[in-house]
Amino acid sequence: MNSNLVRYVLGWVLIIIGAMLILPIIVAVIYHENDYIYFGIIAVACLTIGLISSKIKPKNTQMYVREGYLSCALTWVLLSVIGCLPFFISRQIPSFTDALFESVSGFTTTGASILGVDRQIEDLSHSMLFWRSFTNWAGGMGILVFMLAVISQLSGHSNMYLMKAESPGPVVSKLNPKLKDTAAVLYGMYGGLTILQFLLLALGGMPVFDAITLSFSTAGTGGFSIKNASVMAYEGHFYWQAVITVFMFLFAVNFSVYYLILTKKIRQAFKLEELRWYFVIFISAIALITIDLTINGFYSNVFERIHHTAFQVSTYISSTGFASADFDTWPELSKTILMTVALIGACAGSTGGGLKVSRAIILVKSTARDLRKMLHPNSVYTVKMDGKAVKEDVVSSINTYLILYVFIMVISVLVLSLDEKMDFATDFTAVIATFNNMGPGLAKVGPTQSYYDYSILSKYVLIFDMLAGRLEILPVLMLFNKSCWKNK
Amino acid sequence: MNSNLVRYVLGWVLIIIGAMLILPIIVAVIYHENDYIYFGIIAVACLTIGLISSKIKPKNTQMYVREGYLSCALTWVLLSVIGCLPFFISRQIPSFTDALFESVSGFTTTGASILGVDRQIEDLSHSMLFWRSFTNWAGGMGILVFMLAVISQLSGHSNMYLMKAESPGPVVSKLNPKLKDTAAVLYGMYGGLTILQFLLLALGGMPVFDAITLSFSTAGTGGFSIKNASVMAYEGHFYWQAVITVFMFLFAVNFSVYYLILTKKIRQAFKLEELRWYFVIFISAIALITIDLTINGFYSNVFERIHHTAFQVSTYISSTGFASADFDTWPELSKTILMTVALIGACAGSTGGGLKVSRAIILVKSTARDLRKMLHPNSVYTVKMDGKAVKEDVVSSINTYLILYVFIMVISVLVLSLDEKMDFATDFTAVIATFNNMGPGLAKVGPTQSYYDYSILSKYVLIFDMLAGRLEILPVLMLFNKSCWKNK
Repeated sequence: MNSNLVRYVLGWVLIIIGAMLILPIIVAVIYHENDYIYFGIIAVACLTIGLISSKIKPKNTQMYVREGYLSCALTWVLLSVIGCLPFFISRQIPSFTDALFESVSGFTTTGASILGVDRQIEDLSHSMLFWRSFTNWAGGMGILVFMLAVISQLSGHSNMYLMKAESPGPVVSKLNPKLKDTAAVLYGMYGGLTILQFLLLALGGMPVFDAITLSFSTAGTGGFSIKNASVMAYEGHFYWQAVITVFMFLFAVNFSVYYLILTKKIRQAFKLEELRWYFVIFISAIALITIDLTINGFYSNVFERIHHTAFQVSTYISSTGFASADFDTWPELSKTILMTVALIGACAGSTGGGLKVSRAIILVKSTARDLRKMLHPNSVYTVKMDGKAVKEDVVSSINTYLILYVFIMVISVLVLSLDEKMDFATDFTAVIATFNNMGPGLAKVGPTQSYYDYSILSKYVLIFDMLAGRLEILPVLMLFNKSCWKNK
Repeated sequence: MNSNLVRYVLGWVLIIIGAMLILPIIVAVIYHENDYIYFGIIAVACLTIGLISSKIKPKNTQMYVREGYLSCALTWVLLSVIGCLPFFISRQIPSFTDALFESVSGFTTTGASILGVDRQIEDLSHSMLFWRSFTNWAGGMGILVFMLAVISQLSGHSNMYLMKAESPGPVVSKLNPKLKDTAAVLYGMYGGLTILQFLLLALGGMPVFDAITLSFSTAGTGGFSIKNASVMAYEGHFYWQAVITVFMFLFAVNFSVYYLILTKKIRQAFKLEELRWYFVIFISAIALITIDLTINGFYSNVFERIHHTAFQVSTYISSTGFASADFDTWPELSKTILMTVALIGACAGSTGGGLKVSRAIILVKSTARDLRKMLHPNSVYTVKMDGKAVKEDVVSSINTYLILYVFIMVISVLVLSLDEKMDFATDFTAVIATFNNMGPGLAKVGPTQSYYDYSILSKYVLIFDMLAGRLEILPVLMLFNKSCWKNK
């Protein structure tokens, strides 16, 4: 490992965190809160260490796969630890583990919270609430950076989830100019959509502070809310909830679709297999759940049913995790459909979590191919996506991904079950909800509950799951690989 | 497909079923029960149709992979449907679905039952109880036949789970002489161990009828009991329960181990990686659960704790599913360990269910290999088992297997959740318990409960899961493959 390079990258990360911390200071000043002191101290510390650390450029700026994985994982660890300090130092969240849980949940855009039942969200100051929602937005943005800078090979949407170890990452100091352009367009779209949502909410009469924070956590598909009751707090405001529904859906679409639309390749955009399946899953889930709710007599009219269903499906498929209704009381089938949709997740190349639609498509296709191969061993079948053959190493890396996914789930549920206070449904859905960066699970971690009651050990397991889910497992595993840490 | 060949094979299956039905007729005569009429009618019908059907030999007796898969799947369907008729015609189980569930559960050696709560097991006649336990034994035997005759390539224990499509199955009429010898040894060991268990139980004072039926269901790792309370009915009889513990453990060992021991290759037997890991998993599970029970203050002394733990781990690892205690009341961690042990399952080449220890080993090794490959793309790693390289197509077929496993589990839980009476923990563990041929799950399908309350649709899903789990998915999927049914 080139530790000088990693040190250099982390220096820049510290500078960025320092800069981000200026925003809650402004909020604290506006609302006459003393919290600006805490944010200020941390910002100054970050900027100082960051500037020193990034001053000396490493001689070798070539980034190979190890440095890529490690910088990426360490960036998230750094973000999380520093991000939790304001909560912890101000004693607004007195336990370090809880503060870290909240911060990891924010930056990984999970939205699972230890607040809500024993400790009210509304008890936090405005600047802390702002910071909490902002971590969702920064986390979502960070994923886009990560995709661009570390994964590097943005040659097509189907390569977004591909991390090929043999290809050196981009040289840190001089980004590929084309890549830089793409990055600028991505950030522009991310910012633009966030502002659009804010305007639609604010013009619809939502208080400005609520509109800003909700737009932040929708954009990152994070799901933090400044209200204990999440979006249920806006009951009756159908327009606001509808706007959020639409934007949750939009932020879970592969951003290359918007890029294609902006560059006027609209037909090409709508031909993308992932986008089509994303629509199909979205619409079928809404149809099935609406029927289920109708049969079981939920809500008084069909409009309300579709409204709540669309909100719920959007929030699950995008892994946002807002609640517009206590879906834990919904019929079993609806709950299982929502869990399944959450497992499949959003499109690759979006801020959403889960397995990702394109991975699911390739898994289904490659499994069908393997079955056919067993019957006709001498024939040759290739897995195709958008008309092009998918490389065999992509297929096999997706298989490996799913197997790791299952391993980590089983082990996490095992460790969580040490907590005698909880039950199986709680532990299982807690792991799904954190690993897929969704937020609320069912039963004792349902939408009106919180993660507060878990033991410290369980919380660290869930923190690991959130990070592993967000960084798609591999970079996090590298943290535990000795050979990765060896200085070369 | 060569339908003449399949017809011929199924004819022989009918003759075997007809012969098996003579046993419960004898039991009915001994206990002066009228049920011999039902068994008699069915036996005569089976023998007649079977003799006609197997009279005309097909011209082409070469069995290819399609015929192999199809005959295997159809054999189990035939066994199940005919096996349920005695229960149904005698009205001792008045619903056809319930009778079929019981029969499938028997032949797949699952041991899940619709009896026990609303309808008592003790209400069945002796001959029906005998038949019910006998299906467990025949199912276990059938798996050994299946391994030999359909999978064919018994070149080593690590090939037992390998179904290579290109290799033609054995010619039906003239079995490979060496294969025939191996088969005879296998049946001998299966029968021998069953008789040994019966003797140990009967000499230990257990009533003869109980000893026979319990030995049947232990040998098949099925888990049917003639008592509502399963093995809890023998509370206080530590010796009987200990004998059952030991034999559950033994029947889940790869039978090639016994073959090696018989042929005096004892050192070679104990060097097998699968056997070693099986021991390690068994011992660690017992240790962890004993500690968990101690901490949570279960049972009055350490002897009782180890006794119940060893029984429970044996029953789960071997997928037998007897209950010596209501483990649904045990601490969460113990329950999750038991579920995990059940997922991993028994050794390949035994009558036990689950993923199988050797599959789990190869999965772990190949995933570790894939991770290393991502870091060092130019190096070559091979997955080894017992010192020999595992072929890449075996590795990939195991990956495919696990993915199908996950797919089928998710879809089954989805359909089961249509049942509003049940909850998530029930549905999830019901699927695990049937798919892994274990028997009881947790919550509403726990050891003191039954599957009776599930809807007809759910019962058919669980029937599918039991068959798919027992036949290791592929043959059952072939039933739904149109191209497999085409006559050539």
